[in-house]
Amino acid sequence: MTQLIKARAGIITPEMVAAAKKEAISPEQVRQGLAAGTLVVPANINHSALEPCVIGTGTRTKVNANIGTSTDFPDQEAELEKLRQVVAAGADAVMDLSTGPSITATRRRILVASPLPVGTVPIYQAIADANARYGAMVQVTADDLFAVIEEHAADGIDFITVHCGVTRQVVDVLRKRRRVTDIVSRGGAFLTGWMLHHDCENPLYERYDQLLEIALKYDVTLSLGDGLRPGCLADATDGPQIQELLILGELVERAWARGVQVMVEGPGHVPLHQIRANVELQKSICKGAPFYVLGPLVTDVAPGYDQITSAIGGALAAWAGADFLCYVTPAEHLGLPDAQDVREGIIASRIAAHAADIAKGLAGALDWDLKMAKARKAMDWDAQINLAIDPGHAAKLRKEKNPDHRKECSMCGEFCAMKVVSEALGTDRECC
Amino acid sequence: MTQLIKARAGIITPEMVAAAKKEAISPEQVRQGLAAGTLVVPANINHSALEPCVIGTGTRTKVNANIGTSTDFPDQEAELEKLRQVVAAGADAVMDLSTGPSITATRRRILVASPLPVGTVPIYQAIADANARYGAMVQVTADDLFAVIEEHAADGIDFITVHCGVTRQVVDVLRKRRRVTDIVSRGGAFLTGWMLHHDCENPLYERYDQLLEIALKYDVTLSLGDGLRPGCLADATDGPQIQELLILGELVERAWARGVQVMVEGPGHVPLHQIRANVELQKSICKGAPFYVLGPLVTDVAPGYDQITSAIGGALAAWAGADFLCYVTPAEHLGLPDAQDVREGIIASRIAAHAADIAKGLAGALDWDLKMAKARKAMDWDAQINLAIDPGHAAKLRKEKNPDHRKECSMCGEFCAMKVVSEALGTDRECC
Repeated sequence: MTQLIKARAGIITPEMVAAAKKEAISPEQVRQGLAAGTLVVPANINHSALEPCVIGTGTRTKVNANIGTSTDFPDQEAELEKLRQVVAAGADAVMDLSTGPSITATRRRILVASPLPVGTVPIYQAIADANARYGAMVQVTADDLFAVIEEHAADGIDFITVHCGVTRQVVDVLRKRRRVTDIVSRGGAFLTGWMLHHDCENPLYERYDQLLEIALKYDVTLSLGDGLRPGCLADATDGPQIQELLILGELVERAWARGVQVMVEGPGHVPLHQIRANVELQKSICKGAPFYVLGPLVTDVAPGYDQITSAIGGALAAWAGADFLCYVTPAEHLGLPDAQDVREGIIASRIAAHAADIAKGLAGALDWDLKMAKARKAMDWDAQINLAIDPGHAAKLRKEKNPDHRKECSMCGEFCAMKVVSEALGTDRECC
Repeated sequence: MTQLIKARAGIITPEMVAAAKKEAISPEQVRQGLAAGTLVVPANINHSALEPCVIGTGTRTKVNANIGTSTDFPDQEAELEKLRQVVAAGADAVMDLSTGPSITATRRRILVASPLPVGTVPIYQAIADANARYGAMVQVTADDLFAVIEEHAADGIDFITVHCGVTRQVVDVLRKRRRVTDIVSRGGAFLTGWMLHHDCENPLYERYDQLLEIALKYDVTLSLGDGLRPGCLADATDGPQIQELLILGELVERAWARGVQVMVEGPGHVPLHQIRANVELQKSICKGAPFYVLGPLVTDVAPGYDQITSAIGGALAAWAGADFLCYVTPAEHLGLPDAQDVREGIIASRIAAHAADIAKGLAGALDWDLKMAKARKAMDWDAQINLAIDPGHAAKLRKEKNPDHRKECSMCGEFCAMKVVSEALGTDRECC
């Protein structure tokens, strides 16, 4: 029985209780949201290290970090070090997107070590294996792909990205409606290439019922991938993207009918003024299923700073109702992120998520800011550092920039506004 | 004659022509906007190194960077190096906020070296001088302050922040309506302390006509400071802030009546959901005068990352109509920024400004992104690097993260979606 089926049966599970503890809502509210499909608790029955969290409407906006080897950077130890960074930096979930050698071993080590829900994109492994086995990615079979999915599920993976909505119909729309960057989702691209080569339908769509049975057996949360997500602003919110979303809306309802937890992935590269429409459209078409967005990046021109372009878009998206932000690191569009990139990506996404939670009026969100404001007014540096979203980084900068160990910061020094006005108004004694 | 007076007389000046060249509008449109007060061209008659730019509705969102010595970091050479960074990183204006020793010499060296409009906050020098001369900041006289303002104007400063709206009435509102962080503007704080100590009105308000005469003589653009800008989310959009804005609205009209160019400064720390209201309120109360915002920072909890909190807020503010973004660096709330902080702050603000220009539909803004998208599709790395908002940084990361000199990036390597789908769809030959 999945968390969804138990929720519908009125059962409050230990996973719901654990997830509710991290929120300002009760286990019963988690149960109700799960039953309604507006919340998911990704919690594979075989992921024993998991400390569950809940994703969706009315809960804190969550942040995912992607890690994983590539053929150029195959070192498993480096990825386990990144996992430690991911946990330390306060991410809520992690995806292992390994495509280097030893994908299975890497995934299993990450699962053992991760208290966070772990996601994967099984098609990456199916294709890498096919490359090794048959000498060509395109020779992968549908059965190969389903075997990999079952293996990931049995290993304990909590959520999987499956690009079920990249159907022949969607590819036809893509061919008719020209795009600047076509397809930038790896899963979407492989499936498109595979379908065209073999002249057949997407097996993840055609055999969706089989996928649901695997998800049901292990309580894997399906994350319906957006294979047609725009790869640049010029392609945003276009026919192919929305055509796929319409199909994902149908697949959400089929997952719910089978008792399978499901969320929906979204763009990508989207200009500021289209972000709210994208979120509201997903929420309407997909009947309130949680929305998991990559970015969105609000401009294409800032490689090296895409943690910032996506923090801008992520804040707007989450404020509009997106529930789960996939981080983007400074390495995006340039190469595989290292541990420092991972950290910067997570903090940027957490800033976006928190800013949105305040804007949405999430209970308790503003309390953190109020504590920081009072610490600033009191010039209480220990409290300011402890309350910082990244205390180690704040402490390091404070130390570097305060050679004289002043109580004020070195920007204003003795000309500190806080100090001057507290003395003038006599408010130095009343704050905090 | 100021640019405003000339514009009203139907004269298109060389400064208007030079400023229009950097925009998608004509010199005549610059003239019309100047005459209407919705545009300013800060261009002191004595700033000979200036290459003028235009700020306001219908033009590219501009970015300002603050530099300047402090008592802890008095080195002039370091500030001149920062100025070079400011120009190289693509800022549109620079403010010299020096409070260290030799303020006059620092300012004059910056003016000689800066092709960008240079702004100052003269009260900083008035207070620093008073501290040296009388042994107490509060002993500064109104005449001292006006003498410093005249000196800055005569030196060639293009725009000055003057906190004319911090009146006794506003301070009374502040005392009645409690705030968490009272006043965080240094100018606002000093003036409040001074007014309370001497039990008198703000001289910048009381003697505003005298200020206008100085501005008129040298064509200094007044930047009406927001001394009551919120220093934390909890204080945002409150009674004292809006009370001051109402006064600034009156002062804008008095500046226009005298033929003086004027813009208005705004917050500060503002939650996402209040940003649009803040901008629309300023535009209405101040009759379309350009709006120059600091941030806004959308959360208080991210010291060390305030270039990101302010990029989020700045993008929203500029999209809503703010015209000029004052950068915030990673050092904000911790200490004086160094040259690297300055660079990061400028790039973050430029990202916000550009994202907003796209959202506003500014002519030509999206072209840059389209070129980048085509370069990505073509895997043309030279073009991607050249088009990047910070080419040097993008080139450095690409080099570090691409040990095998692949055509693809090292995140996907051979599993590159761009490559796979171009081959499958046969679009590799049609792009760009």
